[in-house]
Amino acid sequence: MTWSEWLAEEAAAREEAGLTRRLSPRPAVDPIIDLAGNDYLGLSRHPEVRQAAADAALTWGGGAGASRLVSGTLELHAELEAELADYLGQPSALVLSSGYAANLAVVTALADRTAHVVSDAHIHASLVDAARLSRARLTVTPHSDVEAVREALETSSGDRTLVLAESVYSVLGDAAPLTELAELCASYDALLVVDEAHGLGVHGPGLVTGAGLAGHPNVVVTATLSKSLGSQGGAVLGPARLREHLVNRARPFIFDTALAPAPTAAALAALRVLRARPGLSGTVHDRVRTLADALGVVAPDGAVLSIPMPSPQAAVAAQAAALAEGVRVGCFRPPSVPDGVSRLRVTASAGTAEPDWDRAVEVLVAVTKEHQ
Amino acid sequence: MTWSEWLAEEAAAREEAGLTRRLSPRPAVDPIIDLAGNDYLGLSRHPEVRQAAADAALTWGGGAGASRLVSGTLELHAELEAELADYLGQPSALVLSSGYAANLAVVTALADRTAHVVSDAHIHASLVDAARLSRARLTVTPHSDVEAVREALETSSGDRTLVLAESVYSVLGDAAPLTELAELCASYDALLVVDEAHGLGVHGPGLVTGAGLAGHPNVVVTATLSKSLGSQGGAVLGPARLREHLVNRARPFIFDTALAPAPTAAALAALRVLRARPGLSGTVHDRVRTLADALGVVAPDGAVLSIPMPSPQAAVAAQAAALAEGVRVGCFRPPSVPDGVSRLRVTASAGTAEPDWDRAVEVLVAVTKEHQ
Repeated sequence: MTWSEWLAEEAAAREEAGLTRRLSPRPAVDPIIDLAGNDYLGLSRHPEVRQAAADAALTWGGGAGASRLVSGTLELHAELEAELADYLGQPSALVLSSGYAANLAVVTALADRTAHVVSDAHIHASLVDAARLSRARLTVTPHSDVEAVREALETSSGDRTLVLAESVYSVLGDAAPLTELAELCASYDALLVVDEAHGLGVHGPGLVTGAGLAGHPNVVVTATLSKSLGSQGGAVLGPARLREHLVNRARPFIFDTALAPAPTAAALAALRVLRARPGLSGTVHDRVRTLADALGVVAPDGAVLSIPMPSPQAAVAAQAAALAEGVRVGCFRPPSVPDGVSRLRVTASAGTAEPDWDRAVEVLVAVTKEHQ
Repeated sequence: MTWSEWLAEEAAAREEAGLTRRLSPRPAVDPIIDLAGNDYLGLSRHPEVRQAAADAALTWGGGAGASRLVSGTLELHAELEAELADYLGQPSALVLSSGYAANLAVVTALADRTAHVVSDAHIHASLVDAARLSRARLTVTPHSDVEAVREALETSSGDRTLVLAESVYSVLGDAAPLTELAELCASYDALLVVDEAHGLGVHGPGLVTGAGLAGHPNVVVTATLSKSLGSQGGAVLGPARLREHLVNRARPFIFDTALAPAPTAAALAALRVLRARPGLSGTVHDRVRTLADALGVVAPDGAVLSIPMPSPQAAVAAQAAALAEGVRVGCFRPPSVPDGVSRLRVTASAGTAEPDWDRAVEVLVAVTKEHQ
C-alpha cells in the first residue's frame, strides 16, 4: 500500500465510524458564547493582559530568537519565573513553550529505562506521552486509588520512581488525594509529579500549595500558562536543584525556542491580575455550582462540568442543539473518556459576561433535558 | 539514594566534567552583538512584525484559549496556514506551538510499532525524540549517505517507512541530497520528512521547494516559525490528506493549546516581509561567505558558520574572548557534535547592523587565531 492509499484508508475508517474531527476557525469577535475553552478566569481577554502582551511584542520583538540556553532567555522569562515561584510558594520555576513540553521535560529528564513510572489511569495525554518517551517501566494504577499506588511502589525497591497525577482531572473534574499520595511518596522515596493545569487559578495558587505541599522534597508541580493564565506556555516548579537539572538535561527544554515575549508578558500580567483579584476563583466555583444544581449533577472540583449523556449520539446532538442556540460546549466521547460514558464538557469561566452566562445555563438545561 | 541525593550527585558530576550550563537572562536593549541566535533575517525585531504581534494581542487576547480542535483555532491560524502553504508551494499547512511539536506530531501520527524510521545520523534532537516516541523500528544511517538509506529501505518491504532528514543540518551547515532521497523514497514508497528549520527563509521558501519537490507525494516538510520567521511555533506542510490525518491523530497537536495570537500574527507578518524582500536571503549568504573567507573555512549552505577549534577548552576560551569584546557566539562541544570536533557557532544574520557585523568579523578573526 502506498502512503497516500494508507492515508485514504485511515480517513475512510474515521469517516465510517463518525469520528472525523475538523477545525473551525473563529473570528476575533465571536457571536457564540464559548463555554468550551480553558480560559477559566477570562484573563486572556483582560485589558491589562492584552496590553502587556502588546507592549512586550513592541519592546522585545516577535520571538525570543533562540533556545533558552543559547541567547533566548529574556529578563522577562526570569521575572515570570520568579513571580510564579513566589505565588505557588515554590523554591523555583522554569518556563517552557507549552504545558505538553513541561510534562515531557520533567518526566524524561528524571526517568529513563532504569526508572519506574507509576501513573494514574486518568492522566493527561502529555504525561502518557512523557512516560512513553522516557522508556521507564510503567505501572498504570486505577484512578485515584492510593492503595494501588502503594502496591506499585512496593515493587520499586532501588529504582528511581515517579508517581504521576493531576491536581484536578480534566474529564471527571475530580481532585486527586494529594496529601495521601505525597505521604506515600515520601515513605517510599518516590517523586510525585502533579499537573496543576486545571487547578492553578481555579484554586488560587493550586491544590498542591493549598494542601501545604509546595516545597515538599517529594513533590514537583507542572502548570500551564494557557488556561487560567490566559496565555501560552508551561512551567515546572520545585527545588532549585531540579530546575538546574532540567536546564541541563531536559531535551524538550534545551532543543526548543524560548517562549515568545508576548505570551511571556501576557502570563505575567495575568498572574498579577489573579493575585490582585483572588475573588475570580470564587466566581468560577459559584458558576459551576449553579450550573450543576440546575442540571442535577455533582459539581466538580475544577472549572469544567461534565454532563453524562446516554450515548455518544445524544451527546453530539445536544452539543449541536446548544450551538444552534448560540452556546458552544465541548463533548467527550469514547475513546477519549476513561469510563466509556459520553459527556458534554462545559467550562464555567469567570470571563463570560453575566447575561451570557445566564442565557447559557438556560440553553444547557433545555438541551440536556431534550436529549436524555 | 533519595531524589535529592540523586539530583545532587548528577549536579556534582556535571560540575566536575565542566559541563554545567546556566541561563543568562538578557535585557531588551542588549549592548552585546548577538551572533548566537536563529533570527536569521532579523525579522523578530522588524517594525512590521512587532506591530502585527502587538495588534493581534490587543485584538485577540493573550492566548488562543483552547486546543485547536476545541475552540482554539483562530481565523489568524487559517490565514497563516494558507500563506505558508502558498509560499512553499505546498497543498496545505498545519501550525503547531513549536518546531519540536511539529516534528513529534508528524512522526508519531504516521509511525507506530509496525513502522520503520530511517534517520540521518545528524538530525535534530526533536526528530530523534519523535522517532523514539513513535516506537517504530529505527535505523540510523551515516550522515547524508544515500546508499545507506537505500540499504535500509531494502529491509523495509511491506512496512510503512519514514526517512528523516533536514534540508540544512544545524551543526555542519551542509545541505541534504534531497533530490536523491526523494527519488529513493518514491521508488520504495517511503515518505521523506524534511525539516526546513534552517532552510526556510535562508533559501527563500526552502530547499525542498527549490528542488521542485513541494507537493511530491513522497515528501513532507516541517518548518519552524521561530528562526527566519522571527516568532514562535512550527508547521507541517504536505498533502491535504496528511493535514487531516494530523488533525485527527497527532497527539502533540490535539493535546496542546493553540499557538497564541501574537506569535501567529508575528510569523504571518514576517512571511509577508520575506516575500516582499527576497533579497534578505542574499544578505545572509553574502555575510556567511565574507566570514568564511576571512577565517579560511568552508562556507555552509545555511546561515550558521561552524568554526572548528582544536579542543573543547579552546572553543570555550575563544567564545569567552569574543564575549569580552562584545560579540556573543555559540559553542558546540561533545557530546552535542556528531563528529567529536568542538566548534564556534556563528550566525550570519541579515538583522545585524552593518557596523556591528564588520566589528564582529574583526573580533572573530582575532579570537580564533589566538585560540588555534
